[in-house]
Amino acid sequence: MAANNANKTLVTEPLISHIRKFCTIDLERLSILESFFEHRTYRKKEILLNEGNRCYEKFFIVKGCVHLYYLKQNGIEQTTDFALEHWWISDFMAFQNSSIAQFSIRAVEKTEVLCISADNQRELLNQFPELNAYFHLVFQRACAASQVRFRLMFELSKEDLYRHFNQLFPEFIQRIPQYLLASFLGFTPEYLSEIRKKNIS
Amino acid sequence: MAANNANKTLVTEPLISHIRKFCTIDLERLSILESFFEHRTYRKKEILLNEGNRCYEKFFIVKGCVHLYYLKQNGIEQTTDFALEHWWISDFMAFQNSSIAQFSIRAVEKTEVLCISADNQRELLNQFPELNAYFHLVFQRACAASQVRFRLMFELSKEDLYRHFNQLFPEFIQRIPQYLLASFLGFTPEYLSEIRKKNIS
Repeated sequence: MAANNANKTLVTEPLISHIRKFCTIDLERLSILESFFEHRTYRKKEILLNEGNRCYEKFFIVKGCVHLYYLKQNGIEQTTDFALEHWWISDFMAFQNSSIAQFSIRAVEKTEVLCISADNQRELLNQFPELNAYFHLVFQRACAASQVRFRLMFELSKEDLYRHFNQLFPEFIQRIPQYLLASFLGFTPEYLSEIRKKNIS
Repeated sequence: MAANNANKTLVTEPLISHIRKFCTIDLERLSILESFFEHRTYRKKEILLNEGNRCYEKFFIVKGCVHLYYLKQNGIEQTTDFALEHWWISDFMAFQNSSIAQFSIRAVEKTEVLCISADNQRELLNQFPELNAYFHLVFQRACAASQVRFRLMFELSKEDLYRHFNQLFPEFIQRIPQYLLASFLGFTPEYLSEIRKKNIS
């Protein structure tokens, strides 16, 4: 899509559309974003953030999907979250404090992101404080999603949790590898396979 | 504490102190908050928000403690979160959409809050958009806390989760009724009592 009156397509265009869903901000001013973000493409399984490294960056998913995970004592990866198109993802504690990440982030499929460093974000928000209104609403919504997810974790058995996700996000369930979905739901891959068979038959 | 050059103590003073931990905002401008918030005191066990009602309000805890819970199919209350001094709490999804609350909020002890309605918040942020910077950081921190909590729920057994909370927040554990703590940790009160005995001996 062509931005504004220019012929050049801004790489930040998907982010600009997203911002305008939440706030009314002058389109022309939004072209400033271009200089603060890095546009990157990750191959499937490529790492965006490594647990144990300092976390300076946060990511807006333009296209694709990533998962957030940590390494358990037994060396097995535990997926605790996913981020799809138009979600922000980082180790937010580590990003806010520029401290050591307690999580890794990896591309589940080929993934395109807009990446902003903590320094750049500080500078961007200095120059363009109106964007705080966008981040306020985005993070409030993310908190709302967490409240719902905690409720679901208490309310539903693991099997019903799978059915719930399957009903609500059928495309997502089809899209991601089953071993990652199993990890996220707290299953073994074998158990997930059993449930899927049961639900199909 | 007396606000600025006036002798009158602002009821919003605890919120003003909290805002200034996150952002540099002119103290005098912050006195505007006074007209947007309602200062309320709830007795122990009094309800701030009722599941099934429309949610128009969000609360900043000045003093005391509240719990967020929902009613399970079997009529038992399931506590999914607590909020202590200087935390914001609401059913954030319902607040953002002015829709029906999926959670209730109740005072665990006598609790003093600053309450803002969705309309007042809209108006406040129109008049004082700089406050979005504060809410951005507050909600990003809350998301960070949720990421850590999801990790703990995957990582630790329920018993270790109790030990973890006990180590990190010993005063909190002493302060809240044990049946609420048990609910939050997913225990029966009897099982929590067993663990406590084991940890003391």
